[in-house]
Amino acid sequence: MTELKNDRFLKALLREPVDRTPIWMMRQAGRYLPEYRASRATAGSFMDLCMNADFACEVTMQPLERYPLDAAILFSDILTIPDAMNLGLYFETGEGPKFKKVVRTEADVDALPIVNTASDLSYVTKAVSTIRHELNGRVPLIGFSGSPWTLATYMVEGGSSKDFRHVKAMMYNQPEVMHQMLHKLALSVIDYLNAQIKAGAQAVQIFDTWGGVLSHAAYKEFSLQYMQQIVDGLIREHEGRRVPVILFTKGAGQWLETMANTGCDALGIDWTTDIGNARSRVGDKVALQGNMDPSVLYASPERIREEVASILASYGKGAGQIFNLGHGIHQFVNPDHAKAFIEAVVELSPQYHK
Amino acid sequence: MTELKNDRFLKALLREPVDRTPIWMMRQAGRYLPEYRASRATAGSFMDLCMNADFACEVTMQPLERYPLDAAILFSDILTIPDAMNLGLYFETGEGPKFKKVVRTEADVDALPIVNTASDLSYVTKAVSTIRHELNGRVPLIGFSGSPWTLATYMVEGGSSKDFRHVKAMMYNQPEVMHQMLHKLALSVIDYLNAQIKAGAQAVQIFDTWGGVLSHAAYKEFSLQYMQQIVDGLIREHEGRRVPVILFTKGAGQWLETMANTGCDALGIDWTTDIGNARSRVGDKVALQGNMDPSVLYASPERIREEVASILASYGKGAGQIFNLGHGIHQFVNPDHAKAFIEAVVELSPQYHK
Repeated sequence: MTELKNDRFLKALLREPVDRTPIWMMRQAGRYLPEYRASRATAGSFMDLCMNADFACEVTMQPLERYPLDAAILFSDILTIPDAMNLGLYFETGEGPKFKKVVRTEADVDALPIVNTASDLSYVTKAVSTIRHELNGRVPLIGFSGSPWTLATYMVEGGSSKDFRHVKAMMYNQPEVMHQMLHKLALSVIDYLNAQIKAGAQAVQIFDTWGGVLSHAAYKEFSLQYMQQIVDGLIREHEGRRVPVILFTKGAGQWLETMANTGCDALGIDWTTDIGNARSRVGDKVALQGNMDPSVLYASPERIREEVASILASYGKGAGQIFNLGHGIHQFVNPDHAKAFIEAVVELSPQYHK
Repeated sequence: MTELKNDRFLKALLREPVDRTPIWMMRQAGRYLPEYRASRATAGSFMDLCMNADFACEVTMQPLERYPLDAAILFSDILTIPDAMNLGLYFETGEGPKFKKVVRTEADVDALPIVNTASDLSYVTKAVSTIRHELNGRVPLIGFSGSPWTLATYMVEGGSSKDFRHVKAMMYNQPEVMHQMLHKLALSVIDYLNAQIKAGAQAVQIFDTWGGVLSHAAYKEFSLQYMQQIVDGLIREHEGRRVPVILFTKGAGQWLETMANTGCDALGIDWTTDIGNARSRVGDKVALQGNMDPSVLYASPERIREEVASILASYGKGAGQIFNLGHGIHQFVNPDHAKAFIEAVVELSPQYHK
């Protein structure tokens, strides 16, 4: 394997000393970039882009050409697993993801297969190895998956939801059926992430976009428990290096201590949490990734720089911080503002690592 | 004035001893009730219902006829103030509230009037006094308003929003314009709530539905600061009784300590917060209202009862708890499940007050 030229992201995830705070952006390969929109126009649908390793590689590389980012992330969707469970994922313009089949009954859950990545999602592992080769050691590659609970919300609701009516009704009324579904999803995610690691992913992130809509008790039982199973089931050492695992539950600011006890290496946090406060709560158990409000990128470069300075100061000196947004970058952001953001981290962070 | 026959809600808000935990439900007069849907069918639009004091009174009373609730809440909308600012509120079926005019520039903000309730929103105070008269001392009447920040989100976005793009851009790019708007809203809300108190509201709640989408720092500056101004500007004593003020920011579980320092009497909390944990954090500064996930009402009566028992046990013995949902009751809830919920509180809570 090619030597990794920039390993500050992997080091920071393990709370090892670095020269400056590493940075990447959730959804950094995305619609805010004109070159991404051009690739999309050629490739066809969003899923066509995901399923074609060359296209997925092309768009993964795009933000790296523009910005001094410290990690690449596989271009894919969190809903590949439910799609591989034969639910028929499709996207309607302006509507978000939808499924042709929804999962609402015990029989629906019984019919769900456990996904075998090698046979069902080889397009993903092919994209991983293509991107890893193309990166040629420039920065590490992040693999990812949706969390079981988050995948379940889409599978039960049939798409995005505002009130999570059906999935919560199932959770409260048929908890054993919900657990059966989450168990199948957890096994599928373990296989999926391990396949990504074997294909070349050097760190993995679990996106629990909708864990924050649960009560504290339900979060532990229906979301965190399954992320814990995944953490326990992952390959943690590969190519002679530790493969760090990042857990990101949006809206989980109140539950960081519990999340830090899963044995993951880092927590992604959103902007509702003060990162300095989070650091004092999780201690040296995990690194912290985040957490600027993506909407700050609508502001002027000066204002963006102020916000970066404030987050760096809040975290303070020492290792264990990875700069990021608290959620994916919005499609209407000016790419020059993203540049101002990333450059501010590059310029302002070295003083915290002396 | 008629003597108040059931004052356990007002007592609990002031952390005074009661015989059992009082209960009411946010949006208790609403679409889940067939009698409400019948009234709506007669009255016409939602705003027609709000603007007609007799209709507003009729639907306010409906849940009290069905359930042993300990408070009534004025039937109205949080967007009456922006509507009175001439923005043209209307409702499209299945789409939520919309405004004909949006507020996006300094000139737009300059053009906003400060609302004078007596002249601009007399239909609201008329509804308050009609309901208060009809209640005849049965239970206390709650008045309410949206928070300045929450009202601003609708005024800038022109309706509901998923990403709060425009309002956050304004907040980060033109903070002084945003502050000017929030200042006008705070003055309007003070006048509005004081008019409701004078007309007969015996407690008031400020609904900050969207404060939780802000960062911790932005929340303090753009939402809490203005709720603080409102708390400071309210009539706190009327008819020889204290008029308690409840602050409810959805998604504010991490910020309860700061909210408790505003001088309000109680905090509304959503289901992401463990109420026992919240109690230990706020101490004896404020009472706590909440916090069952409204989706639990989709479950069986037995399951609902378990959840009530668990929340009561988490809060523990002693005064200062008001039972409620963590957000408004959903329209698809079976009224018998709401009954099971309320009866569980009535039956299970006395042991915590001995």
